Amino acid sequence: MAKVTIIGAGAMGSALTVPLIDNGHQVRLWGTELDTEIIEAVRKGQPHPKHKHCIPSQVLTYTVSELEQAATEADLIIMAITSEALGKIFKRVLPYIKPGMIVGTVSKGFEYGVDGDIIILPDLLESLLPLNLRPEVRFVAVGGPCKATELLWRTPTGVTYASKDIQAAQYMRKLLLTNEYRIEVTTDVIGTEACAALKNAYAVGLGMAEGFRQKQGLPFNNTKSALFTYAIREMKSLSLALGGTIHPVYGFPGIGDLEVTGEAGRNRMLGEVIGGGLTASQAIAKMQAEQITVEGYPAIRFGYNLAKQLARDGKLALKEIPLLEGLYNVLYQDAEAFTTMGSVIRKYTS
Amino acid sequence: MAKVTIIGAGAMGSALTVPLIDNGHQVRLWGTELDTEIIEAVRKGQPHPKHKHCIPSQVLTYTVSELEQAATEADLIIMAITSEALGKIFKRVLPYIKPGMIVGTVSKGFEYGVDGDIIILPDLLESLLPLNLRPEVRFVAVGGPCKATELLWRTPTGVTYASKDIQAAQYMRKLLLTNEYRIEVTTDVIGTEACAALKNAYAVGLGMAEGFRQKQGLPFNNTKSALFTYAIREMKSLSLALGGTIHPVYGFPGIGDLEVTGEAGRNRMLGEVIGGGLTASQAIAKMQAEQITVEGYPAIRFGYNLAKQLARDGKLALKEIPLLEGLYNVLYQDAEAFTTMGSVIRKYTS
Repeated sequence: MAKVTIIGAGAMGSALTVPLIDNGHQVRLWGTELDTEIIEAVRKGQPHPKHKHCIPSQVLTYTVSELEQAATEADLIIMAITSEALGKIFKRVLPYIKPGMIVGTVSKGFEYGVDGDIIILPDLLESLLPLNLRPEVRFVAVGGPCKATELLWRTPTGVTYASKDIQAAQYMRKLLLTNEYRIEVTTDVIGTEACAALKNAYAVGLGMAEGFRQKQGLPFNNTKSALFTYAIREMKSLSLALGGTIHPVYGFPGIGDLEVTGEAGRNRMLGEVIGGGLTASQAIAKMQAEQITVEGYPAIRFGYNLAKQLARDGKLALKEIPLLEGLYNVLYQDAEAFTTMGSVIRKYTS
Repeated sequence: MAKVTIIGAGAMGSALTVPLIDNGHQVRLWGTELDTEIIEAVRKGQPHPKHKHCIPSQVLTYTVSELEQAATEADLIIMAITSEALGKIFKRVLPYIKPGMIVGTVSKGFEYGVDGDIIILPDLLESLLPLNLRPEVRFVAVGGPCKATELLWRTPTGVTYASKDIQAAQYMRKLLLTNEYRIEVTTDVIGTEACAALKNAYAVGLGMAEGFRQKQGLPFNNTKSALFTYAIREMKSLSLALGGTIHPVYGFPGIGDLEVTGEAGRNRMLGEVIGGGLTASQAIAKMQAEQITVEGYPAIRFGYNLAKQLARDGKLALKEIPLLEGLYNVLYQDAEAFTTMGSVIRKYTS
């Protein structure tokens, strides 16, 4: 039995308790100040307010003031925090990080490093560690198609754990692997993280094809699958330019996660309303009014700026990413979606 | 202006008239004995009975007895015939095949060669040519995500033309390329054809995940995207074992066509009713009663037997294709779908 602390009690943090409890571990779920209502509901045996399902009763719960009790002597800490808040919350966890500890992260996105360049999230976490701890702490990034709620009812699921130290990935895998929650491991952290962040951006494009259908009253399956193909191709270019490999792109983090993200969810929905006729400005204003955050929106800007950064460093040519550029033009320059996506497909085949 | 003869007036044959007419070519559409009603409707300016849309009025139409007039002096002949009938119909076209001619084929599937081994369709066509013509006639295979009806309303579409002679593929591309119908070319005929045939098989598996949803009242997105990822992985193994490359697998014929086939259509529907609780025997009987043909059903047997043939020749290990084997067990041995697919995912990650 291992002691596992999950930092963040949102949908994914709470769902990961299921395989851990199934494997008989001690599971401590800590809620941030935004999760107080969640922790209270779970303590009363009520459904989780986010996904409306109960989590296993064996889970130990901790409110925001109880971080020390939650994190002390953990064998594994899993950061289940949105990408924007990840660094801030990790700083609060730092006092409880001990040499030899393994830290998992399920956040998906990019961040700015100290020099202003865009970096992947495990590198952000590592940069926050005190220098003496850096060689002693190993990070494991989680990628692949995994809707949190489906973990709760034990849907057959396949994900990828990536760590520079394969033994760290294997250790985390051993703690979480069940009959239904299946895990592959890789040392390609860069490729895994690049896919995890970028698929949200590309899913907005897939949603646009659904929006064209609604607006024009005809299906655009051909267009959607062409964009899907290009999205994978561009993820490959970006992963390679960053120093990653093709393997995560053609596995769970790339193909798999793009498939699930393109089927449903908020990223696709944002694309849908734009494809359906709203300008991006109108769509974003509408979402902000409804207090809906869509990861794909900042991911498109991060991705495009990352591509420009890689081009500046001679690692990528911008003509390798016409779809990402087209998405940037639609989302941040109010370019017309149908014309832009048609032009992307023509660029690829000219 | 080129003279292009389309053999077969079904959904795809009739839809390909659109880019050809848009480019100002002379287009001759010949109907088999099964297409008489179609040709009559088109001649009267009525909608095509299959897809209920009108095709361009400039298309010249020919009934089954008018093959000579249809095929004489064609610059390009496009075979748009179901895979089962392809060889039989091509034999009737043979007298009109002249040296230097280019023959395109949009059929997707496998067939048995003269030695009883499974072969790809362009090889079937080539084997039917008189020996003296073989060096003189070039074949172009069409792969990629292309719903026929979407060609009619000029949806942005991307496909792949594959020929051992890249100039033949480029010639056919030049005749058909429009602003909306976009074409990449490759010399990898084997990989393109393997994907084209196998995606129908794997789409049945994706449909099963949709069926689980209906039966259990919960989504199985994680399962579907894991199966999607494995399908691409197995197409890669099979393409390489056959002597093809990875490129079509990771392009339109593989990723792209699997995406569109998994979204809708009869292959997915077959999987859905089985995932929803019917045994394969029941599902097949039901479809036969309704006179519905599903390409994925024979494709699963062809694919699995092809894998065994490749294993016999030392080119593939059967453990590389657990999903295809699982699909064979469900479709041809009445194995239970949910258990089998769960077991496939475990095999991959054990």
